[in-house]
Amino acid sequence: MESSEKPQALEYILILSGEEILAGRNQDRHLQYISSSLTPLGLLCRRCEVIGDKKIYLTKYIRNALTEVKLVIVTGGLGPTVDDVSREAIAEATGIVLKEHSTALAMLEERFRSFGRKMTENNLCQALVPVSGTFFPNPNGTAPGLVYDKGKKIVIALPGPPRELIPMVKTNLIPFLQGRLKLKRPASSRSFHFCCIGESNVDQIVREKLGGETDLTVSLLAQLGLVNLTLSLPDDNQESQERLSRYADTIRGELGTFLYSETDETLEQTVGELLKQRLDTLSVAESCTGGLLGEKITSVPGASIYFLGGVISYSNRAKETHLKVNTETLRIHGAVSRETACEMARGIQSTFQSRWGVAITGIAGPEGGTPEKPVGTVWIAVSDPNGKAFPFRIQFPGDRDAIRHRSCIFALDQLRRLLLKIDPHSTS
Amino acid sequence: MESSEKPQALEYILILSGEEILAGRNQDRHLQYISSSLTPLGLLCRRCEVIGDKKIYLTKYIRNALTEVKLVIVTGGLGPTVDDVSREAIAEATGIVLKEHSTALAMLEERFRSFGRKMTENNLCQALVPVSGTFFPNPNGTAPGLVYDKGKKIVIALPGPPRELIPMVKTNLIPFLQGRLKLKRPASSRSFHFCCIGESNVDQIVREKLGGETDLTVSLLAQLGLVNLTLSLPDDNQESQERLSRYADTIRGELGTFLYSETDETLEQTVGELLKQRLDTLSVAESCTGGLLGEKITSVPGASIYFLGGVISYSNRAKETHLKVNTETLRIHGAVSRETACEMARGIQSTFQSRWGVAITGIAGPEGGTPEKPVGTVWIAVSDPNGKAFPFRIQFPGDRDAIRHRSCIFALDQLRRLLLKIDPHSTS
Repeated sequence: MESSEKPQALEYILILSGEEILAGRNQDRHLQYISSSLTPLGLLCRRCEVIGDKKIYLTKYIRNALTEVKLVIVTGGLGPTVDDVSREAIAEATGIVLKEHSTALAMLEERFRSFGRKMTENNLCQALVPVSGTFFPNPNGTAPGLVYDKGKKIVIALPGPPRELIPMVKTNLIPFLQGRLKLKRPASSRSFHFCCIGESNVDQIVREKLGGETDLTVSLLAQLGLVNLTLSLPDDNQESQERLSRYADTIRGELGTFLYSETDETLEQTVGELLKQRLDTLSVAESCTGGLLGEKITSVPGASIYFLGGVISYSNRAKETHLKVNTETLRIHGAVSRETACEMARGIQSTFQSRWGVAITGIAGPEGGTPEKPVGTVWIAVSDPNGKAFPFRIQFPGDRDAIRHRSCIFALDQLRRLLLKIDPHSTS
Repeated sequence: MESSEKPQALEYILILSGEEILAGRNQDRHLQYISSSLTPLGLLCRRCEVIGDKKIYLTKYIRNALTEVKLVIVTGGLGPTVDDVSREAIAEATGIVLKEHSTALAMLEERFRSFGRKMTENNLCQALVPVSGTFFPNPNGTAPGLVYDKGKKIVIALPGPPRELIPMVKTNLIPFLQGRLKLKRPASSRSFHFCCIGESNVDQIVREKLGGETDLTVSLLAQLGLVNLTLSLPDDNQESQERLSRYADTIRGELGTFLYSETDETLEQTVGELLKQRLDTLSVAESCTGGLLGEKITSVPGASIYFLGGVISYSNRAKETHLKVNTETLRIHGAVSRETACEMARGIQSTFQSRWGVAITGIAGPEGGTPEKPVGTVWIAVSDPNGKAFPFRIQFPGDRDAIRHRSCIFALDQLRRLLLKIDPHSTS
């Protein structure tokens, strides 16, 4: 296994110019947008630098970047004010001068005309384009995108506002790069999404089974009960595809029960698709998660086809009244118990007349723990269309928020397992 | 008003290590969080670099950064897998070796024990700490934060997952930096938290009313229906305190109805406190938000004192059965209407026997919009202890997620206004 850098892929450096982002006043979204748009073309972001709008620094960083890579992309700093230094900084760094362009000027004038505003003189700089290169028209703003083309090295400047940048990336940047850099589709890769298993367990299996494949790139990402694994090979040819298929078989063989998706589907989407295929419906009864499970399920557009709703039973009374949990059950076993979880699951199923019922009851903390039921103790139960409940107890680490999120992941996974008729979770 | 850069300020460089962020698979939020947390201490981010998980590059960038500034902060790459190279890269760059620490090891073992998982050997690296420096315990994960202290230069490594990083910044990083760098609480400052008002409206008022105060630093941060304003003066003395008190009076006078907190209380906490003080109780009826409002309310520990629960009525049937919404109301006015919102609010109030009832019904999209009720149309109603409902319609911009979040903010704010007996939102 090697790290994810591939020598064949073209790399670029992204420079985000903006005091607002650097000072934490604005959230950057350009890195994710640009990187995820260019990665599929075989263009990998080697590094992203967020810097302020001082021209001297910007010029220096662009020069440095050009010693490392063939392509540098700069966002922001193309407006008409003194803070907008990118146009000049790139000209200095590349030695390519700027010249007023008649088409660019006509577009700028037309834009001001259409808004019924008078164009002040400081705006004229936005009609300047590199003498060697080209420019991207900006139908959503005043500053065009600029391409400074030195032959072996290219610097591209894009406007900062997202509503100008995003259409320009799609309409201009991608087609330009495909033509100019003669891009073909690069590496082949496969993604695997697991739930209810630790990152280190996945890592260990991958090392044991695929550790000998020297040109295989492995990347792992863990997040609250979910683990994403990506396997990549340098070339996109039939041999790579066949090898990845074999690896996928290995992964499925070893970790199949934890694998909920091989596309970019979320666990909520996977479960939703399974319900949709079966024309099944679902309702939920939530205690400690307080609505989070419903929120996750309904984050999927169109969830109303299979999701009927739920009850947030944050009090014992609500469990009795709305979920028909027996007063005696609560008295004898407590709100966080196998018995209560099962009655909640069956209760919501019957009151919503849904095919499936899911229930979560637990102690999310920081208060409310006892020696027998410490903070993080959660009972989850799923009631199937026959009214048979599948409960399990689990002890989660972490804070209130982590316990609540993990509870929802495990509840969704229990439903997924039952829908797929694979071994459900159970209390050992 | 001056910009937030102060010549006295210390600068640091932030290095985010993560292929996932660089490849655009994950959205970075660390830059904004760390930068906005450290700026008030007088620590300014000079540059932020996002790089992959190749040790050789990371080492190089840390070395470069240390030639420019005294403090370098690295996030990510502290886990147990082969991708996690920060620990070693910083050791190489600083020349400070790592050694197993008995306390760190004990914490690590305890964490695995509490999770009921066996600790695999690859995890042991997470008990290594710099021989010169210290470490920050991580109650929310396995990897502690690491401080490599060379005397004149310091490199600090923080874990990548936000739920581990954020508490560590608050609990450990800030106090550590204050002590180690002898930061005098640089300035005196006041924070104001607004909801249901635009950032530019707050900005405008502050400029109009306080624009003449030359040594006043103003920082604004906006996020989905919420705006945070911080006013800072350079010195922490009585005069500054008195001036800030006057400014606070001005802000309250101009924007009082939108101001929900002058501490770091969230809107959910503010509303929870108001309910607690009045010994009032609450239940919620959610349609398009699918549980998100309940989730927000119950994210506050101890919410069970005032929050009885709710119904997620994701289908018309659920609105009729569980919230007693009239079939005729739904037929004539539709599920997204003033009438349905009011009946939902009264319905949940009566079925849960709570003092207050809150209801949200709307079109979160992307499907389901009509010319009269486009995506983003939301009706919110709060029913007061007399059963009087206060409905309003609002049209939100943004995607499904933004619409759902903003709906909850406005619903909570309506309740806050009614509890405080200030003008409720209404449809004009």
